[in-house]
Amino acid sequence: MIKIAVDLLGADHDEKLLAGAVKALKSREDLFLYLCGREEEILPALEEAEIPSTHFEILNSADVITNHDDPMRAFRAKPESSLAKAMGICKTDPEVAALVTCGATGAVFVGSVMSLPRIGKLKPILVCEVIRRDNKWLCISDCGANIDCDENSLLDFARVGSTFMRAQGVKDPKIGLLSNGSEDGKGNALTRKAFPLLKESGLNFAGNIEGIHVLNSDLDVVVCDGFSGNILLKTLEGAAKSALEEMTVLAEKLEGAEKEAVLTLAAEAYKKYDYNALGGAVLLGVGLPVLKGHGSANEETMNTLIRMAYDLAEGGLVEKLKAEYNAPEHHS
Amino acid sequence: MIKIAVDLLGADHDEKLLAGAVKALKSREDLFLYLCGREEEILPALEEAEIPSTHFEILNSADVITNHDDPMRAFRAKPESSLAKAMGICKTDPEVAALVTCGATGAVFVGSVMSLPRIGKLKPILVCEVIRRDNKWLCISDCGANIDCDENSLLDFARVGSTFMRAQGVKDPKIGLLSNGSEDGKGNALTRKAFPLLKESGLNFAGNIEGIHVLNSDLDVVVCDGFSGNILLKTLEGAAKSALEEMTVLAEKLEGAEKEAVLTLAAEAYKKYDYNALGGAVLLGVGLPVLKGHGSANEETMNTLIRMAYDLAEGGLVEKLKAEYNAPEHHS
Repeated sequence: MIKIAVDLLGADHDEKLLAGAVKALKSREDLFLYLCGREEEILPALEEAEIPSTHFEILNSADVITNHDDPMRAFRAKPESSLAKAMGICKTDPEVAALVTCGATGAVFVGSVMSLPRIGKLKPILVCEVIRRDNKWLCISDCGANIDCDENSLLDFARVGSTFMRAQGVKDPKIGLLSNGSEDGKGNALTRKAFPLLKESGLNFAGNIEGIHVLNSDLDVVVCDGFSGNILLKTLEGAAKSALEEMTVLAEKLEGAEKEAVLTLAAEAYKKYDYNALGGAVLLGVGLPVLKGHGSANEETMNTLIRMAYDLAEGGLVEKLKAEYNAPEHHS
Repeated sequence: MIKIAVDLLGADHDEKLLAGAVKALKSREDLFLYLCGREEEILPALEEAEIPSTHFEILNSADVITNHDDPMRAFRAKPESSLAKAMGICKTDPEVAALVTCGATGAVFVGSVMSLPRIGKLKPILVCEVIRRDNKWLCISDCGANIDCDENSLLDFARVGSTFMRAQGVKDPKIGLLSNGSEDGKGNALTRKAFPLLKESGLNFAGNIEGIHVLNSDLDVVVCDGFSGNILLKTLEGAAKSALEEMTVLAEKLEGAEKEAVLTLAAEAYKKYDYNALGGAVLLGVGLPVLKGHGSANEETMNTLIRMAYDLAEGGLVEKLKAEYNAPEHHS
């Protein structure tokens, strides 16, 4: 049985999160969820879906942490919140393999970093997956947790990103270093120092990668400081959506089936770049992966997040990270 | 008469550059071009187009600097090259208002920085324009010349970007600081130091801007270090093109008029994000703006670059920069 803690409150449409959790439970036989939210809403939904009681435990939460709460104080101020309960069970039940939430970003990450154990000397790292042109997944590591870093941090982002992809079944993940040019000598002071470390790391390092080639690359991991990674991630989404919105504007001059065809395909392509709906960001380097979906998450988002958490647990992500980061050779 | 030096060699299709220059000469009555290239090709083209000899001077160039040349040595090694001739006339004729080239990037920028005079204490800055969702232009400053910078550099990028847009007729250009979040406190060590400087600069500073909102913003200038700016610029182009290529892939399942409609609109939208074809990068902070088009430039690219150079000259860009950067209050 794979155990996952799920925070069901704090998003725009909490009823959709519950529906997604129910869907996930229906689709996996060896999945157990700690469901943190309003018991009076959760229980009827589970009963209606005929989920056996051996597959869940409800942690009734009378309170919710919102974006209006101070992230630093939210946990102490709201011990009865769904997020605090979810964090709590991660600490008390060592079998919990992942935490899934679509709650207030600041509180999720501050709470995770403050209350969950660390893996060796590893710092928390935020990764996010985008879809390449060839429909394979690409991980951006780090995409926002570590804004100012040194070259050793970039090496950690590469290692953790690689392990993250291996846990999802990618063999010997190919790693690129985000830079302002593809030649070896390109980069800023930080990436030029990181480059030789990556080259000597034993990882499958393919050199520098430019923003224009990220999506049509064959890379599995793009390594960058959290500031650049955040710009990369958000610009990928913003530009792709902008181009597709442009298509719908241009379609205004068409009529009938032709207009319909353009709008339908633009909507279909749009999904590929709607990174929030696709899943979310994953915080690694704390005792278990914390999967954070967007506040606008729907049933499918929650289902996807739980499936991803399940896959990471099954792929032995945390065990792999522990093996790497507790091993003497990485303690340097 | 507005005088512009034009390098006609070193691109993939030099004959198209010449055609573009001829087109530009035909469309403006008070334009004078120094045409640097092969006289035996240039002269017949001008005669055929009936361009009066008072509107041009050919600087015959027997040589060309290519991407295979060492940028640092190219000028000394090839004094007869079209680029060296174009740089030379910028120094000897003080009336030349801009230099346009589609030649080897490294040689263009190294040559400009080494051989053209500076404006006060201003360092060379590379800017590039992209098209916003509302079809207005947005300038990214810096987009690759200054990879590692301090906060005072970012202030310069904002000032120069603002002046660049004012020279193109934008009143009180609105400036955003590229960051990992829109809130005032967001940013890395560099942008957090630059933020208060921008706030107190007297410029129309609108705060932080995230990658996802760049294209649908109402900003005229996005300020960033050259590393981040390069990632922003290239990612905007790569992601938009990727999304539109996705449309053409999806269109494969259609037929006839519907398929045709999708492909036509995708190709139309594509142009908006084809930043190389749209024009090019502009090096500012040297004695005159150096406009660098892509090696794959065609007739329209060259025509656009010359038109832009003309507009910048007419808008008094260099005079404005000199007034700002030679004035005592900016000498700090």
